[in-house]
Amino acid sequence: MLDALQLPVALDARSGPVLLRRATRDDLDQLMALLADDPVSAARGDVAAPGDLPAYLAALEEILADQGNDLLVADDADGRLVGTLQLTRIPGMARRGSTRLLVEAVRVRSDARSAGIGGAMMRWVVDVAAPALGSGLVQLTSDAARTDAHRFYERLGFAASHVGFKRRIPAAPSQTG
Amino acid sequence: MLDALQLPVALDARSGPVLLRRATRDDLDQLMALLADDPVSAARGDVAAPGDLPAYLAALEEILADQGNDLLVADDADGRLVGTLQLTRIPGMARRGSTRLLVEAVRVRSDARSAGIGGAMMRWVVDVAAPALGSGLVQLTSDAARTDAHRFYERLGFAASHVGFKRRIPAAPSQTG
Repeated sequence: MLDALQLPVALDARSGPVLLRRATRDDLDQLMALLADDPVSAARGDVAAPGDLPAYLAALEEILADQGNDLLVADDADGRLVGTLQLTRIPGMARRGSTRLLVEAVRVRSDARSAGIGGAMMRWVVDVAAPALGSGLVQLTSDAARTDAHRFYERLGFAASHVGFKRRIPAAPSQTG
Repeated sequence: MLDALQLPVALDARSGPVLLRRATRDDLDQLMALLADDPVSAARGDVAAPGDLPAYLAALEEILADQGNDLLVADDADGRLVGTLQLTRIPGMARRGSTRLLVEAVRVRSDARSAGIGGAMMRWVVDVAAPALGSGLVQLTSDAARTDAHRFYERLGFAASHVGFKRRIPAAPSQTG
């Protein structure tokens, strides 16, 4: 986890207050459901299959144990988990030795979208988390198919200045066998 | 540094052998020159100014001290530093708890380009480093202006599937004053 982040924090979305906090093991079922609640993610294998629980749990524990990573979730006033995002602080040489803050896996529950929850989370990342972590740059990639998300990030002051390349790596035989 | 990487390693470029190894403090002058030897980077402030040396040194030391990051350099047969790249291993929830390997700041000395050095480094990342680190995905972003680089990554099997968004964060008053 990123110790410099002061959490939990109350954020104001248009739909009402949300509480942004660190994820815990108790959030795992809702996190799996949230990842599956998205056609792009579901097409990549995030379908909340019960057999995948150990893999998600191991990932969650590794993120929380890592001093450069954190996994956050947002609860609405009814205690429903309505959003999540992952932060990675990356020291780097480029841009005169700048530290970057990478945002991954930003998701808002489908029945809670267009209520300002994603915007409230991302404004907190830009205005609070990045300065607290000494990051001079916030970056993320968004699937080319997510055109609504692209407009959302541009409204938040992000520039679509880069092309994001991905390459899948087949699992080594020792890992699959 | 990423302990699971077996370094140094000899790679074959078309121009001859190169040795890929971890960067050290002694590489700092050549690393600053390499970052400045590129118009896109120079426009972002990487101009190898002597006064920037402490910032680059602090970044290098932070990268090498971080268990999720590594900074690599390639020497040619004459001992010239001809290439560099940074690797960041990122545990994540998406894609069924996949770990990603992020590649940043890939640079090859301008008078050593088109000699297969960048390709040799990137093939090692995909074929050796990613499996050694348990990463099911290698990802990077490339400035939209670097169209030659985009063809290079596509030849290496990367898909330009994402849009890369960046937002600069102004330094806090306490950091600039």
